[in-house]
Amino acid sequence: MVGGGMKALIGEVHRKALKFDNRVELVAGCFSSHADRNAEVGVEYGLDPARVYANYAEMAKAEAAREDGIDFVSVVTPNNTHYAVCKAFLEAGIHVVCEKPLCFTVEQAEELAKLSREKGLLFGVTYTYTGYVMSKVMKEMIAEGKIGKVVSVNAEYAQDWLLGELATGNNTQTNIAVWRTDPAISGAANCVGDIGTHIENYVHYVTGLKIKRLLATTNKYGKALDLNANIIVEYENGVNGAYWCSQVAAGHYNGLAVRVYGDKGALEWVQEDPEHLRYTPVDGATQLLARGTGCIREKAAAQGRLPGGHPEGLVTAFANIYRNYVSALVALKNGGDANIYDYPRVEDGVSGVRFIRAVVESAAGGSKWVEV
Amino acid sequence: MVGGGMKALIGEVHRKALKFDNRVELVAGCFSSHADRNAEVGVEYGLDPARVYANYAEMAKAEAAREDGIDFVSVVTPNNTHYAVCKAFLEAGIHVVCEKPLCFTVEQAEELAKLSREKGLLFGVTYTYTGYVMSKVMKEMIAEGKIGKVVSVNAEYAQDWLLGELATGNNTQTNIAVWRTDPAISGAANCVGDIGTHIENYVHYVTGLKIKRLLATTNKYGKALDLNANIIVEYENGVNGAYWCSQVAAGHYNGLAVRVYGDKGALEWVQEDPEHLRYTPVDGATQLLARGTGCIREKAAAQGRLPGGHPEGLVTAFANIYRNYVSALVALKNGGDANIYDYPRVEDGVSGVRFIRAVVESAAGGSKWVEV
Amino acid sequence: MVGGGMKALIGEVHRKALKFDNRVELVAGCFSSHADRNAEVGVEYGLDPARVYANYAEMAKAEAAREDGIDFVSVVTPNNTHYAVCKAFLEAGIHVVCEKPLCFTVEQAEELAKLSREKGLLFGVTYTYTGYVMSKVMKEMIAEGKIGKVVSVNAEYAQDWLLGELATGNNTQTNIAVWRTDPAISGAANCVGDIGTHIENYVHYVTGLKIKRLLATTNKYGKALDLNANIIVEYENGVNGAYWCSQVAAGHYNGLAVRVYGDKGALEWVQEDPEHLRYTPVDGATQLLARGTGCIREKAAAQGRLPGGHPEGLVTAFANIYRNYVSALVALKNGGDANIYDYPRVEDGVSGVRFIRAVVESAAGGSKWVEV
Amino acid sequence: MVGGGMKALIGEVHRKALKFDNRVELVAGCFSSHADRNAEVGVEYGLDPARVYANYAEMAKAEAAREDGIDFVSVVTPNNTHYAVCKAFLEAGIHVVCEKPLCFTVEQAEELAKLSREKGLLFGVTYTYTGYVMSKVMKEMIAEGKIGKVVSVNAEYAQDWLLGELATGNNTQTNIAVWRTDPAISGAANCVGDIGTHIENYVHYVTGLKIKRLLATTNKYGKALDLNANIIVEYENGVNGAYWCSQVAAGHYNGLAVRVYGDKGALEWVQEDPEHLRYTPVDGATQLLARGTGCIREKAAAQGRLPGGHPEGLVTAFANIYRNYVSALVALKNGGDANIYDYPRVEDGVSGVRFIRAVVESAAGGSKWVEV
Repeated sequence: MVGGGMKALIGEVHRKALKFDNRVELVAGCFSSHADRNAEVGVEYGLDPARVYANYAEMAKAEAAREDGIDFVSVVTPNNTHYAVCKAFLEAGIHVVCEKPLCFTVEQAEELAKLSREKGLLFGVTYTYTGYVMSKVMKEMIAEGKIGKVVSVNAEYAQDWLLGELATGNNTQTNIAVWRTDPAISGAANCVGDIGTHIENYVHYVTGLKIKRLLATTNKYGKALDLNANIIVEYENGVNGAYWCSQVAAGHYNGLAVRVYGDKGALEWVQEDPEHLRYTPVDGATQLLARGTGCIREKAAAQGRLPGGHPEGLVTAFANIYRNYVSALVALKNGGDANIYDYPRVEDGVSGVRFIRAVVESAAGGSKWVEV
Repeated sequence: MVGGGMKALIGEVHRKALKFDNRVELVAGCFSSHADRNAEVGVEYGLDPARVYANYAEMAKAEAAREDGIDFVSVVTPNNTHYAVCKAFLEAGIHVVCEKPLCFTVEQAEELAKLSREKGLLFGVTYTYTGYVMSKVMKEMIAEGKIGKVVSVNAEYAQDWLLGELATGNNTQTNIAVWRTDPAISGAANCVGDIGTHIENYVHYVTGLKIKRLLATTNKYGKALDLNANIIVEYENGVNGAYWCSQVAAGHYNGLAVRVYGDKGALEWVQEDPEHLRYTPVDGATQLLARGTGCIREKAAAQGRLPGGHPEGLVTAFANIYRNYVSALVALKNGGDANIYDYPRVEDGVSGVRFIRAVVESAAGGSKWVEV
Repeated sequence: MVGGGMKALIGEVHRKALKFDNRVELVAGCFSSHADRNAEVGVEYGLDPARVYANYAEMAKAEAAREDGIDFVSVVTPNNTHYAVCKAFLEAGIHVVCEKPLCFTVEQAEELAKLSREKGLLFGVTYTYTGYVMSKVMKEMIAEGKIGKVVSVNAEYAQDWLLGELATGNNTQTNIAVWRTDPAISGAANCVGDIGTHIENYVHYVTGLKIKRLLATTNKYGKALDLNANIIVEYENGVNGAYWCSQVAAGHYNGLAVRVYGDKGALEWVQEDPEHLRYTPVDGATQLLARGTGCIREKAAAQGRLPGGHPEGLVTAFANIYRNYVSALVALKNGGDANIYDYPRVEDGVSGVRFIRAVVESAAGGSKWVEV
Repeated sequence: MVGGGMKALIGEVHRKALKFDNRVELVAGCFSSHADRNAEVGVEYGLDPARVYANYAEMAKAEAAREDGIDFVSVVTPNNTHYAVCKAFLEAGIHVVCEKPLCFTVEQAEELAKLSREKGLLFGVTYTYTGYVMSKVMKEMIAEGKIGKVVSVNAEYAQDWLLGELATGNNTQTNIAVWRTDPAISGAANCVGDIGTHIENYVHYVTGLKIKRLLATTNKYGKALDLNANIIVEYENGVNGAYWCSQVAAGHYNGLAVRVYGDKGALEWVQEDPEHLRYTPVDGATQLLARGTGCIREKAAAQGRLPGGHPEGLVTAFANIYRNYVSALVALKNGGDANIYDYPRVEDGVSGVRFIRAVVESAAGGSKWVEV
């Protein structure tokens, strides 16, 4: 992994995802340009210190040279370094997974694509939202003709986290500051680059449609970069779509929502409720399709990990219980206070058994009151 | 870990949760009574074969004897064995986490509680739903008086997966069959034991209320065990609550929903949308509180791992991308077809960069059409 | 009409409903025991003063004697007078429509029923919620076997308007005071009588099920009458249902919600969204059925008055525009200020035409900016 | 009234709305060019046959000449005749209310506006959706600064009723056919004129913003007129908005939805759920504001007619009960079968009273079963 210090949100999400299926082991990395933060991750994950590198170039070279070198690198650095980092690993003959956006210019992007093709290296880009099971179900249903021929697309990605920018005039996030002050990236887009690109990828993923041309307005509200954009696209088949992205839309935390209308029905996916699709066949009622249930497609469904009705965050709920339990255990071993941690205890288990017994007794005895 | 063969859903969920925070390592287990299935998990997780045990009693004894023995055991066996397994580990002086329901009789339950207290061992029970961040927020808000004094509770846990029982008369799930045919567990409850107990625990967790007495009806529809139950409870403070649990309720996959009404407001949590609370202060509008956003409590919020708007299943979406990428990589190395796997490729990254460039150009040039 | 002074909400709703279909004319009444308030309604509706009666007994007698006497009487008086008023009209041979609850004792109720049967008079009770088109669709679907045999019912009617009672200890509504202070109605129920009875009627209406027996808790929180009740019913077929009614449930304004579960599916109707049903066939996805659309039953659909997607409150929206327009007109004629009234003006119409022209021009001219 | 034969949906809606508040009486009209259909409405509404006119010109002239002539005319004819009809009445000195769109050309529209100004006549246009109470609340809240300065607008009006056009190639509605075949209206818009104009009016109504310029795409899918349109508008303050209207969007019956984002919050109104607003203040949770409840503005609230929680369609539910009761009454008088009509009967009232008695008894007697 390149990037992803302990405080970097996305780096930790990548690490949890990497080990989720027990098929990947983190063995080398260059996590930060600060030596101590770099080392910190190595210690946390039990890495061989020799494989915690001071810079990505060195890492690419060294790992390529090792017999037990990494199988692939995961690049989670700030956006403006993606190009250089990816290029270094590709040139060293190492497969790459990179965060989006891939890079800043079309020329850089095409160079990376060309390089990976020429070297026969697999290059993945983590457009996350296509990873959800229901996104795959949506793609399958459209491919199967469930909504017929697409006649209209309406998609949006609205957030509210830069509303403060409007009020104060100050930059409130480091990565925004970087975008704005680095002349090397002048001309580039902020909200279109950050989130608009997810719309573009997601619609293409589920529909297969390619954009032929587009027209757009962007709004900067007196700031350096765009905070809001309206885009009308025309796909190669002549159909139009409307895309809206905004980072100043109160009430939206991470509101990616994609609706595709066809001549035989419509489908809608909303990122904040990722485990459902709304499906309306022509002349029928709108249906709420839920992941893991009988009503969804087989192939895509195979990517699910939990039965219907159990949100995919269930693992996190379990992990919270274990985390608190382990904290209590550590406290107990170290002479700390194990009682302050919040996890269900054996006494809660006893209550449960008492409850069950009382229900059985009351029901069996004519529904009379039973003391618990 | 005891129980949790590779095909056991809940065992795998526990393992993913255990390693989620990088604080726990799986080092020993007794995963199945079938020797080969038992070994399979050991291989998958790279365990020392000497620590993959043939039975739980042996494991408790051996691990207690080792200097590097396990810190705690996670018990994910079928319900009817919880008591014996937990007891063995407690007696061997090992901390325990056990799936719910704790066991079948109040006497067994109290014995386990007593044993853990006497030995100073931490005993956790995985009542999962209290592990969600918003459950903790709900608990905090009630404790802080946000809804005043509780005046009414309405809670339910409805599922549909045993509807088939009504139609066919056949048992469709092994664990149901076990419950029904083993005389050792006669008198026990099915849907009350399986899901009703979650209601009992959850309401107690968030409100602190203790049930004094209850009355109940259960419905068996001609089968051996209950599939539906209505329960009226009276808490120690004299207030009533209504609990409903059912496994024959069409339209509900895993419908735990808890509403608590106080004299100053109300709170509602719904398991299938676990990252929100509905909160109504008296004389105010209903508010939708979302995990990770400014409007929720600080302490409980600290248990969150992702910012607002990103469902906790996001890690799974990332993991899906990595899983497919790794499958492609393995195929490539083994001479298989790397192209059949579904993950975003560098070409998708190129499209994204082209899209951004076109938007910037169109907006800058008077919103004219720009070819992509 | 008996009852329904100008300030009586429900009386005015009845009058609007009576004349809605142009089949009923209000020709006589006894609207208030206060002579002036009584006369006021007569003037407002242009009634012959001779047919605005001082008391209901006189009215029943006089109207029965007229050749052009009323066809039926609509009784919208306070609950405690229903029995006497209805009886007087039945005895005078006049058909009756009465607000719910019919009266206070079972004996009174049976007497009214007997009287209407013996006299061959039609006696309607305005259990309003069965009047919604989707309630009728629900009834039809259940009768047609769409959800199979009913296995469970969960219904509630929750309001918040008496929450203040808990806080202050004062009665905040006149009709509550009447109930509480009049010894003639001691023993009666408040929230069960006021809203619980709607649950009873609605469930019976849509399912046809009859309650054989029930058990209940009611909560008075130290007040004279019940403000919250939990009820478990057993229908004649042995199936159970849970009913909850409350007038101290924050977040609910008028929350009647009825869910019926069968062995082949489920149906749900929620009064605050009266024009939809949620329908889940076994093994299928949940569907949102909307009034006026192709997916709902034919017979019941015939009772609809507007096409799908137009809420039945549309008439009110139109009426608001006309009300404001007429107010402006009256102001204009009386030398008042016609400009203060809020209705769309011709200038708004001009804007609309300009908008359409600009859209047509832009689309025809390559999607360039067009001034409006 | 001009237009609105008995089978004309919108004419009947106007008539119900006109008489809703008991302030308007229908006394004259020209309802159809077919003499018998014209007479039919006159009979139904008890009009003086002398005031049921054969054509609108004659009506304008005659009513203007009468001392008791109409106060205003309501024009509900097909769109292409609005201009001529309105002009005739304005010229006769009669106030006018006209359906939208006002007419087809900007020149006609301005002529009507000029005429009404010069003659001092009130001219209303029934842009219905601004008549909803919550639309007025939204307008007030924005005017009061609740969402600060508007930074973005996203509005849509999506329907599905012309989806069949795509499939069959045939015109399925008469009014569509008229638009398409009459050369006098060539160049005009279909879905933009029919529904897009509502977006334009609604956004202007609630925000006060005026459109300076716009750009648009329209989609005809090989047909004569537009069925789908995407529009980006620029208001006079430089902010952009995106409008989408479509009549081929599966899953939408009458989906007008308007979202306005400001620098201090956001507001959303959805026509199919007209009695709520979603309001998000910056840094706060999203709130669901409901008509008739304490949390909404006072002035606009005064336009409501029912308390919170009672949808404005409640009058229709009551009217349905009365309609069926009256049908039964008519059947009884004519020797027909009064039993086939669906309305709650006195026996239902008896059941209700029995239910209440049983609940009171059970609760008073320790929550034991009580026979009903």
